[in-house]
Amino acid sequence: MSDRIETIGFVGLGAMGRPMAANLVKRGFTVRGFDVSEAGRGALGAAGGEPVAAAAEAAAGADALVLMVVNADQARAVLFDAGALDALRPGGIVVLMATCPPGAVAQIADRVAAAGRHLVDAPVSGGVAGATAASLTIMAAAPAEHVAAVGPVLDALGGKVVHVGSRPGQGAVVKAVNQLLCGVHIAAAAEALALAGKVGVDRGVMLDIVCGSAASSWMLKDRGPRMLEVEPVVTSAVDIFVKDLGIVLEAGRDAKAALPLAALAHQLFLSASGQGHGQADDSQLIRTYDGLNGA
Amino acid sequence: MSDRIETIGFVGLGAMGRPMAANLVKRGFTVRGFDVSEAGRGALGAAGGEPVAAAAEAAAGADALVLMVVNADQARAVLFDAGALDALRPGGIVVLMATCPPGAVAQIADRVAAAGRHLVDAPVSGGVAGATAASLTIMAAAPAEHVAAVGPVLDALGGKVVHVGSRPGQGAVVKAVNQLLCGVHIAAAAEALALAGKVGVDRGVMLDIVCGSAASSWMLKDRGPRMLEVEPVVTSAVDIFVKDLGIVLEAGRDAKAALPLAALAHQLFLSASGQGHGQADDSQLIRTYDGLNGA
Repeated sequence: MSDRIETIGFVGLGAMGRPMAANLVKRGFTVRGFDVSEAGRGALGAAGGEPVAAAAEAAAGADALVLMVVNADQARAVLFDAGALDALRPGGIVVLMATCPPGAVAQIADRVAAAGRHLVDAPVSGGVAGATAASLTIMAAAPAEHVAAVGPVLDALGGKVVHVGSRPGQGAVVKAVNQLLCGVHIAAAAEALALAGKVGVDRGVMLDIVCGSAASSWMLKDRGPRMLEVEPVVTSAVDIFVKDLGIVLEAGRDAKAALPLAALAHQLFLSASGQGHGQADDSQLIRTYDGLNGA
Repeated sequence: MSDRIETIGFVGLGAMGRPMAANLVKRGFTVRGFDVSEAGRGALGAAGGEPVAAAAEAAAGADALVLMVVNADQARAVLFDAGALDALRPGGIVVLMATCPPGAVAQIADRVAAAGRHLVDAPVSGGVAGATAASLTIMAAAPAEHVAAVGPVLDALGGKVVHVGSRPGQGAVVKAVNQLLCGVHIAAAAEALALAGKVGVDRGVMLDIVCGSAASSWMLKDRGPRMLEVEPVVTSAVDIFVKDLGIVLEAGRDAKAALPLAALAHQLFLSASGQGHGQADDSQLIRTYDGLNGA
């Protein structure tokens, strides 16, 4: 574990993964990356990394393997089915940065350990903007020596690296708690602005007042203005929160913790998705309320 | 209506009303004030106002009557039962600043108009700190000429006066929407920190992360730290939100607007109150979750 990390495999070159891999290249790491998308691989090549044709090839002999895939299923497929875990050098570290259910992360960590490698649970918040600016918040959970070993990797990607626990899965819990708040706050903003509109108060005036009072939230300020638009640009889709609040509820189920607000918010996002708005900007959760109450 | 306001009756000299009345005195208004509490009347005298022995005496011949009472029942009692409305000069303006249900405000406004006076619906946000600093946000609803007539009064009390609508009751709606967000945000913070604690993540570490991310809210930053204390100082009691979320739901019922998050948050606050924590700081809503899930 005392070996310095020089070569990094990187799987998952999507909107988040591309700038993250590029930031690793900038810090001097040798980055071999794979994504099923040719565009993702091309972006890595343009950034100075080495695109390869398979996940196992990205991991081959690497000191660390960063996974910025969509979910736990993809992480398992890359590690266990596509052979990336066995290709990683013995003692190497898998850095799992996707948003996954805590229980799934713990199980993956056990299989990684059984194969003689280690897993650092390291989900992020901050979105594409944070990924690009290397200002992500990274919620790392693993024994301290493993987190320390990938410290230079995490520092290259994030502005705030917090060691939240010694057990893989605890990072996923922290990310789940973060998403619980984000999802409920979006839904609360929609419920509030829908009520204002229903009783004839101008939604713009309403938004201005609550953004400047104790009623404010980061999401209200960010999503609120787009709730007043009919077809806003998509910065994050309704279906992302359908997925993330599902993970939150799975975390609660595993912990035997009732999460009534998260459960309700999930239902509201499901309704928006079921009405055909899954790919719309998540601010359009307000359509659920307009449907419920008559706009 | 073109007469300048010089003499103000003020009823309700509680934690909010005392500094507000004092701010009116500082601006040069003659303030005659009443409260059932002798301490309230004494505070007004000390601030340079004139304490009197009855609500009708405070209103007698005044140009405006400010009501900073607890609820709509008290407003009705002062105006109609205690004779304050008839004592106010004809054409005078009642400024109703308590948090009341929108429907109740509209009904009171009709009775005030039938008596040849006017009502400006003007609830506030900003708490005791805002009342003291004259930095309250005031959500005024009434015909423009009535709001303009009491403009100097509102400016003496608040830092941000917003004319939200022409019908009394619309200010109450805006306040209700504000309280909807505040109440749901407190409950979301409690649900989030309770989950973190249940799965063994340090609540302080958790709070630090979410206060710096897109998960943040004004309430999370303000109430979150007190959720980590066992017996925090009481800045606002659980039962205040039992009342205010009740008003929110009444506003929704009158408007035929489903408010599922507010309804759920109300149940959670009721549970905290039912367990005997009604007079505790509202951050102690987390006790509801600790009871639900086992702390």
